[in-house]
Amino acid sequence: MQLAILLYDRMTALDAIGPYEVLQAPGVGIEVRFVAREKGMKRTDFGRLGLQADYTLDETPRPDILLVPGTAYPDAVMGDPVVLDWIAQVHKTTKWTTSVCTGALGLGAAGVLKALRASTHWLAHDVSKQFGAIPTKERVVRDGKVCTAAVVSAGIDMALTLLAEEFGRDTAQLVQLLIEYDPQPPFDAGSPDKAPPRIVSTAREEFRKLNQNAKA
Amino acid sequence: MQLAILLYDRMTALDAIGPYEVLQAPGVGIEVRFVAREKGMKRTDFGRLGLQADYTLDETPRPDILLVPGTAYPDAVMGDPVVLDWIAQVHKTTKWTTSVCTGALGLGAAGVLKALRASTHWLAHDVSKQFGAIPTKERVVRDGKVCTAAVVSAGIDMALTLLAEEFGRDTAQLVQLLIEYDPQPPFDAGSPDKAPPRIVSTAREEFRKLNQNAKA
Repeated sequence: MQLAILLYDRMTALDAIGPYEVLQAPGVGIEVRFVAREKGMKRTDFGRLGLQADYTLDETPRPDILLVPGTAYPDAVMGDPVVLDWIAQVHKTTKWTTSVCTGALGLGAAGVLKALRASTHWLAHDVSKQFGAIPTKERVVRDGKVCTAAVVSAGIDMALTLLAEEFGRDTAQLVQLLIEYDPQPPFDAGSPDKAPPRIVSTAREEFRKLNQNAKA
Repeated sequence: MQLAILLYDRMTALDAIGPYEVLQAPGVGIEVRFVAREKGMKRTDFGRLGLQADYTLDETPRPDILLVPGTAYPDAVMGDPVVLDWIAQVHKTTKWTTSVCTGALGLGAAGVLKALRASTHWLAHDVSKQFGAIPTKERVVRDGKVCTAAVVSAGIDMALTLLAEEFGRDTAQLVQLLIEYDPQPPFDAGSPDKAPPRIVSTAREEFRKLNQNAKA
C-alpha cells in the first residue's frame, strides 16, 4: 500500500507530519512517499522549514492513499493546475483520498468534493461550497473513500480513523500508543465553539492579516 | 526570542514539528531556527522524510529556547559528543530547555537532567535515571527551566504549556485555536496505562525489534 503526501511551498508542516507519523509507524507497512511537482525542498507557510520531496508527481501515478495538507495561503494549492490535474487523476484509482485543513480546497478545486460532505478550516467552509462540497463542522469526515479533517492537528485523528478502517482497531490502537496520543491540552480552546469569543476574534484577525499579506 | 530545534539523522519528525507548529504560530513572534551539526538535510527515523537544517550549531550559540526531539534510536542523539557539548553549552543561557520523548536522553547525556524531574518515553525511564533524572509518568513535566514531554504527540501539549508560561494564557489559547487542537482520538489507547495489555505488549515488541535492528 502506497501513501503519497503532497508537498508544496507555503504548506503547513503539521498537516502533513501528523498523519505521516501515524501512517508510517512500525508494524503498519505502508510505503510513504513525499511528492511534489518537482523533486527537492519545499518551504513551509512562513518559510521557516524545508521539507524534501523525494518523488515527482509523474513518478507517483497510482498512490493507494493521497494526502493533501493545508496552507495558510490556499492559492498555493488551489492555484496550481499541474497539481490539481494530478489530484484529479490519482483520485480515480486511490483507495483513500484525504486532506487536512485547507488541503480540502485543493481536493475541491480538483473536482473531488462535488456533493460530498467534507471538513476543512472553519474559515474556509464557504470556499469549499464553491466546489460543491457540503462543509460540516465535524473534526473528521468520511464520505465514501474521501476522508477530510478540520484544522492542522485534526490530521492525527483522521489518520488514526483511516488506520482503523483499513488495518483494524488493534493496529490503530498500537500506533496511538506508539506516538502516545493521549492528548492533555492545557486549555479547552481548540475550536471556535469552545474558545473565548475574544480569542476567536483574534484568530479571525490573524487570518485576515495573512490573507492581506498573501495578496500584497 | 529565538527557538532552536535540533535536527539529526534518525529523529522522529512529529517530536519536532508538533512544538514547531505551536511556537511558530502567527502572533507569537518567536524566531525559529532548525539547527544541526552541519547544515543540510537530515532524514527521519525510517529514512522517509528529509528535513532541512538551515543553521549549524556553531551559528546558534545562544537560543532562548532549546528543543531536542526524540528518536526511535536514542544513540543517534546520546552518541554524538558534538551535539551533547552544544546542548550543555547553550543550556547555560537558555530561558527554556525542552525535549520530547527520547530527546530527554540527549538532555540527560549532556548533563542537563541531574536531580530533575523529567518526562520521557515510558520505555526510557530507566535510561534517564542513569543520567540522574527523576523520571515521572506525567505527560509534560516542568522542573525549573527544563520542560520535558512524554512520547511524540506530547510535544504539542508541552509547547502550549510553555507558550502560556512565557506569553500568557491568551496567546496559548489563540494558538490552540489556530491549529484547532481539540483532540478527538478515535480510541483511548494513548498511554500504557490505558491501552489494552496485548497492545502494550505489541508496542514493547516493536521497540525491541527497532533496537535489535539498530544494533545489527
